[in-house]
Amino acid sequence: MSADDLVLAERRGRVLVLTFNRPDRLNAWNDALEDRYVALLDSAEQDPDVRAVVITGAGRGFCAGADMEELAKVGGGEIEAIDPRPRHRPLLFRKPLIAAINGAAAGLGFVEALYADVRFATPTAKLTTSFVRRGLIAEYGVAWLLPRIVGQSRALDLLISGRVVLGDEAYAMGLVDRVVGSDGLLDAAVAYAEELATWCSPTSIGVIKDQVREAWTSAPAEAIARSEREMVASFGRADVAEGVASYLESRTPEFGGTVQA
Amino acid sequence: MSADDLVLAERRGRVLVLTFNRPDRLNAWNDALEDRYVALLDSAEQDPDVRAVVITGAGRGFCAGADMEELAKVGGGEIEAIDPRPRHRPLLFRKPLIAAINGAAAGLGFVEALYADVRFATPTAKLTTSFVRRGLIAEYGVAWLLPRIVGQSRALDLLISGRVVLGDEAYAMGLVDRVVGSDGLLDAAVAYAEELATWCSPTSIGVIKDQVREAWTSAPAEAIARSEREMVASFGRADVAEGVASYLESRTPEFGGTVQA
Amino acid sequence: MSADDLVLAERRGRVLVLTFNRPDRLNAWNDALEDRYVALLDSAEQDPDVRAVVITGAGRGFCAGADMEELAKVGGGEIEAIDPRPRHRPLLFRKPLIAAINGAAAGLGFVEALYADVRFATPTAKLTTSFVRRGLIAEYGVAWLLPRIVGQSRALDLLISGRVVLGDEAYAMGLVDRVVGSDGLLDAAVAYAEELATWCSPTSIGVIKDQVREAWTSAPAEAIARSEREMVASFGRADVAEGVASYLESRTPEFGGTVQA
Repeated sequence: MSADDLVLAERRGRVLVLTFNRPDRLNAWNDALEDRYVALLDSAEQDPDVRAVVITGAGRGFCAGADMEELAKVGGGEIEAIDPRPRHRPLLFRKPLIAAINGAAAGLGFVEALYADVRFATPTAKLTTSFVRRGLIAEYGVAWLLPRIVGQSRALDLLISGRVVLGDEAYAMGLVDRVVGSDGLLDAAVAYAEELATWCSPTSIGVIKDQVREAWTSAPAEAIARSEREMVASFGRADVAEGVASYLESRTPEFGGTVQA
Repeated sequence: MSADDLVLAERRGRVLVLTFNRPDRLNAWNDALEDRYVALLDSAEQDPDVRAVVITGAGRGFCAGADMEELAKVGGGEIEAIDPRPRHRPLLFRKPLIAAINGAAAGLGFVEALYADVRFATPTAKLTTSFVRRGLIAEYGVAWLLPRIVGQSRALDLLISGRVVLGDEAYAMGLVDRVVGSDGLLDAAVAYAEELATWCSPTSIGVIKDQVREAWTSAPAEAIARSEREMVASFGRADVAEGVASYLESRTPEFGGTVQA
Repeated sequence: MSADDLVLAERRGRVLVLTFNRPDRLNAWNDALEDRYVALLDSAEQDPDVRAVVITGAGRGFCAGADMEELAKVGGGEIEAIDPRPRHRPLLFRKPLIAAINGAAAGLGFVEALYADVRFATPTAKLTTSFVRRGLIAEYGVAWLLPRIVGQSRALDLLISGRVVLGDEAYAMGLVDRVVGSDGLLDAAVAYAEELATWCSPTSIGVIKDQVREAWTSAPAEAIARSEREMVASFGRADVAEGVASYLESRTPEFGGTVQA
């Protein structure tokens, strides 16, 4: 398998589907897979024809987390540490990132699912933080993201127990946003992404994702002041004229495909 | 129609009902309507006989957002920008503010609904952020409030898709707090407000609303230190004596009607 | 009754069950009870044989809040104020703290339930903030914790109305994490705690609880930077080797019983 095959890329209309592809290892994460994933996100962000990205896993799993063979070396003292590389590129991705969780999402695989803006899952997909059962901690962005998605006590429940929740329970907790049978999962995620590609301004989406992330550590007055600056800036861009005109003319809009701000 | 009629004001006991009143335009927002709304909130805050405010819309809608005729001028370059006036007065209102969402709440109308402390809606009321479909951004307080009400991923779902959710789905997401058929909506919101008017100290409510807003950007120790200062201050006010005495005597309390702190 | 009897302590395996024990007063809080509770938490944190703590109430209630006789003195001007002692020790407890809410949790009793990481409740347990009905404010950590557990508008609903919610509604709001009939409540909470005792590293739990608390006021990059430092630190501890080895050998792990970091 070439390094490029670690993450498969397929275009469906203006949606790019990225598939983690180490199915014999439940798509366990390693540096080569991450390098490929980051390179694909970088190029999708620059490509005006790609309006949204859906991530999923090949075979039975979504992503089983860090490769246990590497972790075993750490545990056995063979290597001092796994290099804590920046693994939050997806959190800064400026276009919609939708997860289609087709099976187990564990440890780092759980975190990668959280980095998506919206999560679709099958009713039986297994989700688990798992870190606490390996003597690990809340890795990468999970301590920041999980409480903001499901609230403080559901986050602690999942983080300090490391227990497995299935898609249905995950939906009830707000951990995933839609539950779809495995036959229709990827199509449903792509259809949602295609709706965004059709109706929504990529620049608006990019600005809004940044506003939401920043607002978590802002006072209300700061967040409102930023919104006013962003509103004035938006008035100078072609997307507002097109957004209003297309609405008044009852037609689909033609927005610019790259994020302008 | 005089400017005063843009927002109707009616007292029901100690509850003030404010009705956005441009029914031929689904109560679309404009500066004159906002000026009237803010003036009514200012006077309600000072009036000891008003203990809570309920907002709703005349006719079929709650508030359809910024008037599209004004936005079209921006899009067409006729004016440079809509003046980003301070539109968060309701967020700083010190008495209970309850929204009775009787129909479409879109864009700025969605934001006004979020500025309320608690939201009642009909099962079929349409709620949508809509900004992203007009090339706009997360306006005013929505990037700050929405993730704190429904969590990060539900907020992103609503903000980056601009999709419509009906009252029932909004309730399931935590976006509204009660669903009531349109026949009983306003009565239910007023009854809730009247319960607060009967049993709850206006000063306590004013302090607590401020504590909650501030605690979002405080460390736990800071929030607890403030609560201790507020507790000591409360012991010096008549409302504590009355709150405890009325409890021990099994009667309704007689609290002061203006916010003392 | 000796001061030690104000909180009963019983070991069930590696789980310590603490029972607030003033059943004739619905376990109303006072300084002596708190002193005993804090002393028991301090010693549980140091004891390697105690892996998790469950708190519950004797008799019909969980905890009815501050003793009304003391509050009446404040209201009547007999004493100037209740000393606002540090009452957030449980928030800083580094092992799992599980609440089994067997009956009324009001005022300070509501806050004590919130300080637990995860909450179990009976379907009919009455939960209420109650402060606003006594002229009080959002005491201790409640303005910080409640919005982070149930979201901003559900928190305001509970805080500005002081209304009572039963266990079933509390579960629907995310205020409690499990609902169990009163016959099985304590056993269910202990079984959950025992699962953590069996499978989860105490050091991992201690670090993660601190990460989650701190991440609420961190930017994402700060939270991720901390996670990387914590990950490197974890690689130097025996629990990672044991966590990975026990997983690969399909056996229960033998983690160190005190928090190492």
